[in-house]
Amino acid sequence: MSKLLHDVGAGRVGVDEALERMQIERIAELEHSTLDLERAMRCGFPEVVFGHAKSPDQIADIVQRMNKAGQSVLVTRIARQAAAAVTAIVPDAEHNAIARTLFARSGDPPQCKPGIVVVTAGTSDQNVGEEAAVTAEAMGNEVIRIRDVGVAGLGRLLAHKETLARAKVLVVVAGMEGALPSVVAGLTDCPVIGVPTSTGYGAGGKGEAALLAMLNSCAAGLTVVNIDNGFGAGYAAALINRAR
Amino acid sequence: MSKLLHDVGAGRVGVDEALERMQIERIAELEHSTLDLERAMRCGFPEVVFGHAKSPDQIADIVQRMNKAGQSVLVTRIARQAAAAVTAIVPDAEHNAIARTLFARSGDPPQCKPGIVVVTAGTSDQNVGEEAAVTAEAMGNEVIRIRDVGVAGLGRLLAHKETLARAKVLVVVAGMEGALPSVVAGLTDCPVIGVPTSTGYGAGGKGEAALLAMLNSCAAGLTVVNIDNGFGAGYAAALINRAR
Amino acid sequence: MSKLLHDVGAGRVGVDEALERMQIERIAELEHSTLDLERAMRCGFPEVVFGHAKSPDQIADIVQRMNKAGQSVLVTRIARQAAAAVTAIVPDAEHNAIARTLFARSGDPPQCKPGIVVVTAGTSDQNVGEEAAVTAEAMGNEVIRIRDVGVAGLGRLLAHKETLARAKVLVVVAGMEGALPSVVAGLTDCPVIGVPTSTGYGAGGKGEAALLAMLNSCAAGLTVVNIDNGFGAGYAAALINRAR
Amino acid sequence: MSKLLHDVGAGRVGVDEALERMQIERIAELEHSTLDLERAMRCGFPEVVFGHAKSPDQIADIVQRMNKAGQSVLVTRIARQAAAAVTAIVPDAEHNAIARTLFARSGDPPQCKPGIVVVTAGTSDQNVGEEAAVTAEAMGNEVIRIRDVGVAGLGRLLAHKETLARAKVLVVVAGMEGALPSVVAGLTDCPVIGVPTSTGYGAGGKGEAALLAMLNSCAAGLTVVNIDNGFGAGYAAALINRAR
Amino acid sequence: MSKLLHDVGAGRVGVDEALERMQIERIAELEHSTLDLERAMRCGFPEVVFGHAKSPDQIADIVQRMNKAGQSVLVTRIARQAAAAVTAIVPDAEHNAIARTLFARSGDPPQCKPGIVVVTAGTSDQNVGEEAAVTAEAMGNEVIRIRDVGVAGLGRLLAHKETLARAKVLVVVAGMEGALPSVVAGLTDCPVIGVPTSTGYGAGGKGEAALLAMLNSCAAGLTVVNIDNGFGAGYAAALINRAR
Amino acid sequence: MSKLLHDVGAGRVGVDEALERMQIERIAELEHSTLDLERAMRCGFPEVVFGHAKSPDQIADIVQRMNKAGQSVLVTRIARQAAAAVTAIVPDAEHNAIARTLFARSGDPPQCKPGIVVVTAGTSDQNVGEEAAVTAEAMGNEVIRIRDVGVAGLGRLLAHKETLARAKVLVVVAGMEGALPSVVAGLTDCPVIGVPTSTGYGAGGKGEAALLAMLNSCAAGLTVVNIDNGFGAGYAAALINRAR
Amino acid sequence: MSKLLHDVGAGRVGVDEALERMQIERIAELEHSTLDLERAMRCGFPEVVFGHAKSPDQIADIVQRMNKAGQSVLVTRIARQAAAAVTAIVPDAEHNAIARTLFARSGDPPQCKPGIVVVTAGTSDQNVGEEAAVTAEAMGNEVIRIRDVGVAGLGRLLAHKETLARAKVLVVVAGMEGALPSVVAGLTDCPVIGVPTSTGYGAGGKGEAALLAMLNSCAAGLTVVNIDNGFGAGYAAALINRAR
Amino acid sequence: MSKLLHDVGAGRVGVDEALERMQIERIAELEHSTLDLERAMRCGFPEVVFGHAKSPDQIADIVQRMNKAGQSVLVTRIARQAAAAVTAIVPDAEHNAIARTLFARSGDPPQCKPGIVVVTAGTSDQNVGEEAAVTAEAMGNEVIRIRDVGVAGLGRLLAHKETLARAKVLVVVAGMEGALPSVVAGLTDCPVIGVPTSTGYGAGGKGEAALLAMLNSCAAGLTVVNIDNGFGAGYAAALINRAR
Repeated sequence: MSKLLHDVGAGRVGVDEALERMQIERIAELEHSTLDLERAMRCGFPEVVFGHAKSPDQIADIVQRMNKAGQSVLVTRIARQAAAAVTAIVPDAEHNAIARTLFARSGDPPQCKPGIVVVTAGTSDQNVGEEAAVTAEAMGNEVIRIRDVGVAGLGRLLAHKETLARAKVLVVVAGMEGALPSVVAGLTDCPVIGVPTSTGYGAGGKGEAALLAMLNSCAAGLTVVNIDNGFGAGYAAALINRAR
Repeated sequence: MSKLLHDVGAGRVGVDEALERMQIERIAELEHSTLDLERAMRCGFPEVVFGHAKSPDQIADIVQRMNKAGQSVLVTRIARQAAAAVTAIVPDAEHNAIARTLFARSGDPPQCKPGIVVVTAGTSDQNVGEEAAVTAEAMGNEVIRIRDVGVAGLGRLLAHKETLARAKVLVVVAGMEGALPSVVAGLTDCPVIGVPTSTGYGAGGKGEAALLAMLNSCAAGLTVVNIDNGFGAGYAAALINRAR
Repeated sequence: MSKLLHDVGAGRVGVDEALERMQIERIAELEHSTLDLERAMRCGFPEVVFGHAKSPDQIADIVQRMNKAGQSVLVTRIARQAAAAVTAIVPDAEHNAIARTLFARSGDPPQCKPGIVVVTAGTSDQNVGEEAAVTAEAMGNEVIRIRDVGVAGLGRLLAHKETLARAKVLVVVAGMEGALPSVVAGLTDCPVIGVPTSTGYGAGGKGEAALLAMLNSCAAGLTVVNIDNGFGAGYAAALINRAR
Repeated sequence: MSKLLHDVGAGRVGVDEALERMQIERIAELEHSTLDLERAMRCGFPEVVFGHAKSPDQIADIVQRMNKAGQSVLVTRIARQAAAAVTAIVPDAEHNAIARTLFARSGDPPQCKPGIVVVTAGTSDQNVGEEAAVTAEAMGNEVIRIRDVGVAGLGRLLAHKETLARAKVLVVVAGMEGALPSVVAGLTDCPVIGVPTSTGYGAGGKGEAALLAMLNSCAAGLTVVNIDNGFGAGYAAALINRAR
Repeated sequence: MSKLLHDVGAGRVGVDEALERMQIERIAELEHSTLDLERAMRCGFPEVVFGHAKSPDQIADIVQRMNKAGQSVLVTRIARQAAAAVTAIVPDAEHNAIARTLFARSGDPPQCKPGIVVVTAGTSDQNVGEEAAVTAEAMGNEVIRIRDVGVAGLGRLLAHKETLARAKVLVVVAGMEGALPSVVAGLTDCPVIGVPTSTGYGAGGKGEAALLAMLNSCAAGLTVVNIDNGFGAGYAAALINRAR
Repeated sequence: MSKLLHDVGAGRVGVDEALERMQIERIAELEHSTLDLERAMRCGFPEVVFGHAKSPDQIADIVQRMNKAGQSVLVTRIARQAAAAVTAIVPDAEHNAIARTLFARSGDPPQCKPGIVVVTAGTSDQNVGEEAAVTAEAMGNEVIRIRDVGVAGLGRLLAHKETLARAKVLVVVAGMEGALPSVVAGLTDCPVIGVPTSTGYGAGGKGEAALLAMLNSCAAGLTVVNIDNGFGAGYAAALINRAR
Repeated sequence: MSKLLHDVGAGRVGVDEALERMQIERIAELEHSTLDLERAMRCGFPEVVFGHAKSPDQIADIVQRMNKAGQSVLVTRIARQAAAAVTAIVPDAEHNAIARTLFARSGDPPQCKPGIVVVTAGTSDQNVGEEAAVTAEAMGNEVIRIRDVGVAGLGRLLAHKETLARAKVLVVVAGMEGALPSVVAGLTDCPVIGVPTSTGYGAGGKGEAALLAMLNSCAAGLTVVNIDNGFGAGYAAALINRAR
Repeated sequence: MSKLLHDVGAGRVGVDEALERMQIERIAELEHSTLDLERAMRCGFPEVVFGHAKSPDQIADIVQRMNKAGQSVLVTRIARQAAAAVTAIVPDAEHNAIARTLFARSGDPPQCKPGIVVVTAGTSDQNVGEEAAVTAEAMGNEVIRIRDVGVAGLGRLLAHKETLARAKVLVVVAGMEGALPSVVAGLTDCPVIGVPTSTGYGAGGKGEAALLAMLNSCAAGLTVVNIDNGFGAGYAAALINRAR
């Protein structure tokens, strides 16, 4: 905000534009108070909107105003129909149906920083894995995906040993017994973020088994986010990779 | 019991001996009603006594009477002091301090049947692993141990791949994230019994994480016993190996 | 895979067919990464597909390709409509509406190995019990069912005492208080796999009471799978029976 | 209290004695406010004192004053040393070391009413079972005990089928999987009170498995008290038997 | 069953009728194995059918066959539409929409035994309270209802003090904080069965708070059934009242 | 702090004294960072020190320094021995053994404000009740205690109806089923703070049942603190009474 | 009620009107027994009706009868359609769609008492916050709202520091990590009521994390209501503010 | 290991020394199988030994052998007495009584890398905070501590805003309501690792409240380790800082 006012004071930004930008920030604040907007702006990250339970019109409105003000927007947990309705209005927005995200970039894409690898244990973990990957990408990273490398067939994982060794940050997504992050952390020297998913049924089958397994990992250096929180893992991975 | 009475009727067993044997069975019933004694006898298994909270005198008395009647006895969860006191009275009894067991064989050891392998993830899982191994041995099996092969260092496990491949039944013991049984089940074609242990701390750290991880394993064919129940796993492994 | 390549090398399998088979394996890997396919192939087991949330077209496609490549397929948790749609395309596939399975055999049925008995406590446990039975059958076993023998009427169970005594592996399925596996294990000398079901309501009524009861069983030799995991129990029973 | 005042008014009780009795009631109220004293007095039941954490002197004092006022006293959860100290002062008091109770009767024992049977699954359930039995006896009932009839050996239970059939109220005490009350309820026509005990270890092993199993029993007519609450079960059984 | 055969032997029942009755018993066994049918018959209780998930046709069929064989039937948890469909076929069946029951009596109603009082805390507890009351009535009891006497307004409860004092068995139904059974037990001398209901929201609000409160009651003599188990409470109350 | 500096600036406080006072605040901050000291000072409340795990010397040191600087101190959760050691050094400090508190006043006692009533259900709830009462007294309130009025004997509670009606804030302390706050709230028009205690055993018996019962109370206007948090309830009651 | 009868006796109220009013009270009792009506009447509070699962006709009927008898009515948890249907019949009733309330005042609005501030952490907490605010307003208070001041952006909260400092009672509503009440309590001297909301997902995400966080707050003087219980918090705040 | 063999082959290491080093690695493997030793060696990290339940002799032996082989050792969770005994034998080892660690460096200390800040909420969180700090220091980092900045007094935290802004990785340690990591994450642009501690009592008071609060944080980019796992957080922080 202070930058905006400085810009107004220095004549770099007109009063009308400033008013509009402030209105946009106000919208953002109203719609999703759970993100520290200042951090987003300081770091050049896109604004993030939690799309669940917002109407396509609301989302399209936010996206258009923000893009106009030069701010990229990442919408998470957006339903397929809502995304279709928004892209009808904002054609440049990229919808990722698996990640349930919509990304509307403002300006040219930055040069992406390599280093992040997202590993998923099974097919049903891919929604969450993609959410992590798309979040990290929207924050300026190049992301490599390794899929379907559950611990019941170690050969599939070991085939990717070199990619793992070259990673700077790893996001490892697994449901059911949640063992994959422990195994992966044993194979690499870099920070690993475990993401438990709600894949499974029965006792512990809504992600609790996976979450507890990751919290009790015998592999040092593993940190964890909440069940199905692909966005949080991707965001943390981007913060770590940015620090490099 | 009917066999005993038939033996008495046929003159193969004298009345006094029969009375004593019946008294022994009565003792067994009184002391640990939780085991199906008939099954033990039918299968030639040793009698099993839960040693926790019994005095050395009580244990020594049971062991001597049963041995005299030709019945081997396995005492589980016996404290170090109690075991010392019992072996002072029953010198032939084998005390395993790690497994917390005492085994008093009656008669010559049977020829042991190979096929059971007990795998433990870490040092702190060895009490439970040994309890499983000693139980299976007391029931007439030859048991191979594989130790310290936690999932954070896959190389240690893969070094034993051949032993695993030759196993007929696997007991896999792990605390913390409890991932080892899932990984092992993916490397073999035989039944795997997972034993979670109460190794760890924090949320899920008293074995719940490991138990839930094993119940939610992505590896088909894994069955589970309760936390720290090495005896149950060894017993089940012996029943499976006996069926072969 | 190595067998396939040997077959190609020996001229028993043409290159095109080999490519197609390898593509099928790839499909299988993509669709359901949670099963160790190598084990399935090594042991002559059918490929298993978790049908939940797959479209009839996807399932039919997988079934046809695998059958063509000489591989039997077992689909679990398939909805009634999906099964009808698939059998319209693959008429030979056997749909079991109670078990929610569809089995498409490739080649002649093998000679089935006897020894497995599946016991269910009540009517509402039959879905899970059938899933166990059909899984074991698809893996080459002859399965005897004993139904409606809940512990509140012991006479019904005791009437089957002889069948139980002849079993080599028992799968015992029960919801509510989950007592049946304990009672059954006391009547037999063979390994018993307990399957808790989500039958019930109120505290512990979604299978937790039954699961905890089985984990705390006073009958030695009982092992357990997760709530409603009939497939896992049938698979484990088949591994045990195969070892004989 | 009104009876006391009527007695004073009618000259049947002197003022000093009345004052002392009222003081005793006051003591009782102070010491253990959790029991409805009026009900105890109305029904001729003994006063009940929760002995845990009271000193022997305090207990002896209460017992003597109450006995003097013609009121019997049942002390529950009394430690062995405290009981010895109290019986040194009040020699007629009956200490039951297994039930952890002390009963000091005032006046002649009433004619006991038959009908209550207390059934225990295993040796480690006997403390709780005895607490139930002694409570019911102190309230004027004749109690039959059936011990060591866990569900893993049904023959032991079925041997008592006739005694069960003649019971008017059954208290069934079991830890671990807690299945015994369900099995017993299926064999009789009378009300059954299930008492889960904290016998066991691992998940659900502090009585939760047994409690949930009893709450989810497939046998109609079973009601339950809290874990290890032998006193509550004995008290309820006495109320039911008294109603007959 | 033995009575039936005796009747056949004595010529009191013809062979055809006997066969039909046996078929009916078989149906009953198939449909709901969780009730001890023998007990029901021994005591002259109606057969009980758990109506949830059965079609109107199935229910009507069972009801008609059983009535024809002289057996009354109580259907519990029957939906409004299913009840309407059944009463279209079996016009004499009494549908209680609040209790979600349908009762089809065979023969003249017995003389009802007084003594049971069902107390409910709030309006939303009435489904469960009525299920208890109707169950007890179907088993030959006269039932008094006391409604809307939650503990937040003690005056409403105290107004019924006399009715409570005359009761022989009390069923007390409460959700939310579940305090009513404790308060009621303090006002009476008879056995009290607490029934927690799933009335509420938030932590503990699906009946867990009420269940735990009843298990931890400071009022001696209270026993408990599972959340929403009005049927179980009514059945237990009938067993207790029958014993009188 | 600013007041102190103003005082120094105005010559009301010398530099040395100011330095010492600042050191005292520093001590307070170091020792128990969990209280908002500024609020304590603004409102004239005593400083509060959590005594658990501090040595008598540490406590005596803090008390003496603070008293010297004109600040009263309330020590909570202080063991009997520690209190004796402290009072040997600070003779004016008032030790309340039941509340486990020690209060060292600096200056004359303020005129106490009436309005707070602390109600306890049973004897074992008195520690927590006294902690609440002493906290409120130390903060300048006159506190009335009502003891031993558990819900199983309503007469005892109703005898205090007038005192309850005159209260301005009620703290109601109960373990086991935790029903007392709901009953009390129904009898009065003032705010009620419920304090669950860890009195009990078995399922929910460490205060969970009481906590959940209070959270699910059918009496509007009840708010709750954590299990055994008498201090928090007394503090909140003082804040409410102060607002009047 | 006694006031009503006095009024009848004094001729201030006619018999017919008295009869109608008593009928209204009877309706109220029938419909929602969980509120202490006497308190409501004594304090001049509106009658409160829990609207969930009542038909629009039922609600409109209650509202009209009560208004006619001079009693205001607050309906909580009323669905949008039901509210529309009721306002069609009772046009003066104020529907608050966010709070899910409907308020039908009888007579002139009272002069509102200032002092209550309702603070919400995020957009998704506003339903619950509005329910608290509307409840307090209906009970005669002026309520200030502070919105969207989650702890991840402290500046937003600190901007309202003066409003917080002037509050007499604070209701602080937060989901997810539930930290806001702790932070707010540290900034003010008045009682704070924390309301956890079911905003979130994953482990603890249905309000448990927020509830536990508030119960374990390091800020003294915080009391808590159950998850999503905005009504209870508003009611308690009104009781506290009324006491001033 | 391969490096060692290469060194032997190249004559850089003698056979005896190689044998001794291999023995040391073997010891390490035996004693604490839960760490990936290869990673430790690859990255130049010290070997980490979990000191809990090891004898001083065992620890001293491991430390001496490893130091001799040029490997630094960090012992965690070492008791005060054990540390004294070890430092008597290994005088250079640095014991940190608060962190419960002992660090025995081999060779010169490396140049430490700045960037890690460890923040603790209260005094009782310092053990865990120090364990994190000492771990990171032993891995070659310079660590800044910020202490006693709980959320109930925001001023204390805001005073450190600049230090927080300059951090590259933050470890934030908090018990009770666990809100501090959320607040801190809102003030900085770097990755934050939350460490819940078992500080507190009552519901959620053993760290569960803090853990759930951190998992549900409204501040993006926060990752979490298990309760009291200071070592894990310090290790992860070092991995992140090393990546820079």
